[in-house]
Amino acid sequence: MISAISQARVCIVGLGLMGGSLGIALRSRHACRTVIGSGRRRDVCQQAVALNAVDEATTDAVAAVREADIIVLAAPVRTIIRLVGELGPHVQPSALLMDIGSTKAAIMQAAESLPRHVQVVGGHPMCGKERAGIAAADPDLYQGAVFCLTPLERTRAEALSLAGDLVRAVGARPLVVEPQRHDALVGAISHLPYLMATALTTTAAGVAATDPLIWQLAASGFRDTSRLAASDVDMMLDILLTNRPAVTEALSSFRDKLDELQHLLDSGDEQALQQMMQAAQRRRRGMFQ
Amino acid sequence: MISAISQARVCIVGLGLMGGSLGIALRSRHACRTVIGSGRRRDVCQQAVALNAVDEATTDAVAAVREADIIVLAAPVRTIIRLVGELGPHVQPSALLMDIGSTKAAIMQAAESLPRHVQVVGGHPMCGKERAGIAAADPDLYQGAVFCLTPLERTRAEALSLAGDLVRAVGARPLVVEPQRHDALVGAISHLPYLMATALTTTAAGVAATDPLIWQLAASGFRDTSRLAASDVDMMLDILLTNRPAVTEALSSFRDKLDELQHLLDSGDEQALQQMMQAAQRRRRGMFQ
Repeated sequence: MISAISQARVCIVGLGLMGGSLGIALRSRHACRTVIGSGRRRDVCQQAVALNAVDEATTDAVAAVREADIIVLAAPVRTIIRLVGELGPHVQPSALLMDIGSTKAAIMQAAESLPRHVQVVGGHPMCGKERAGIAAADPDLYQGAVFCLTPLERTRAEALSLAGDLVRAVGARPLVVEPQRHDALVGAISHLPYLMATALTTTAAGVAATDPLIWQLAASGFRDTSRLAASDVDMMLDILLTNRPAVTEALSSFRDKLDELQHLLDSGDEQALQQMMQAAQRRRRGMFQ
Repeated sequence: MISAISQARVCIVGLGLMGGSLGIALRSRHACRTVIGSGRRRDVCQQAVALNAVDEATTDAVAAVREADIIVLAAPVRTIIRLVGELGPHVQPSALLMDIGSTKAAIMQAAESLPRHVQVVGGHPMCGKERAGIAAADPDLYQGAVFCLTPLERTRAEALSLAGDLVRAVGARPLVVEPQRHDALVGAISHLPYLMATALTTTAAGVAATDPLIWQLAASGFRDTSRLAASDVDMMLDILLTNRPAVTEALSSFRDKLDELQHLLDSGDEQALQQMMQAAQRRRRGMFQ
């Protein structure tokens, strides 16, 4: 395995927002030797080269993977799972196979089936944008973000170390975490907020069907609370379908809290309602200073 | 009644974020003759003068109201209801009594009991901040915001016109709407998002009790979706308690949408789930361009 990220030939499979931003970040920081991109569409490959996201790009993923010291799969989760099976056998014995899929347990389970010489470190950067596609790529997307890393049990320490170097090279902060634990936590902190935003937008649209004036009353509160409903549907659908137990548990707990708020409102228990609101206020004010 | 806002002596009762910002906006734009502030606390009155939010300030609300051509009650809703009863009888026969409370039906009902000569126009600017208090006051808080106006049936046209002038003077856009309709719409577009943010923050805090790592995974999605949980509790409590039917209806509709999402996830009906997500995505992407 290569020891220095600066010498690595990095292959990014998937040239969307996340893969494109990763390439731009690596290249603009001169963090590695070369970045080879692989996309399904020829025009996106050309765009990736034009945006300086990659040194070169090809629609032949197998050829790109064969040449690489580090491979990063950057696609919706179920596509990554398919790519693990398709491309894994073509990875060089000494190479590091990474991915940046938004759920980790299903991907890491697929990776378990790879030949034992393939060094695998799953990843999930806690950043993104609603806009998908390489046109929205941003060299600073990863800057300051926590970047979860999920090695397999058999992954060697040097592979995890190299993955950490790549993460730090794009300005992110590596955080090693077990896949199941990762999925449980993002179910509550990321997937639940998406479902809330989607249900809120759907609710407001329902009101708008009888009274379109509602949109004129939408201010910054609604704007921020509903923002995630604009997320990329392909990405979110794969997330929900590969993280059902955690999403279901988070949603169930969330509905309990809503029920509690509704009950306090119904019963007119002003003091208890106020206490629940104050507790949430204190929590939220203590964050994002 | 005074015909030009530029000649008006404006009295703002309540020197918090909203009242303070209104005073600063009026004074910095030289929009009226004088701004008299009334606050309960002497130190806040002094702060209002120091911040140029008012020409002068007093803790004697009755005295301040007696001198004014336009009175604006700027406080939590139930405080406004109390002030309507206490101060209404001291309003000059030719004066305009406004308020900027966040729900309108309960306030307008209280205003119905005032002497018939008092000209009343309720108001609700669709803007705000999580931070309360005059220290957070902002001359541009009202800039570009929709500002709902709710006259009584008996309110004269010239009073509504003067209220519109005040709204435009601080850069906002007047929108005349019936109190009940206003309350139903803000129940869905504003109060529901607050309850969601509060329930989300409470849910995440519950997870954090067993796994504090969750806070490290909180990124911009959670930040925006939970932001309203930091809102001023006094203000929000009055809003919820004076708008129970609309809040309950919005919450019920919202829970139906969550149930639908959960059901589609459980049943694995990928196509229907995708369609619901896409419909919300289209709606949300069409807004806030």
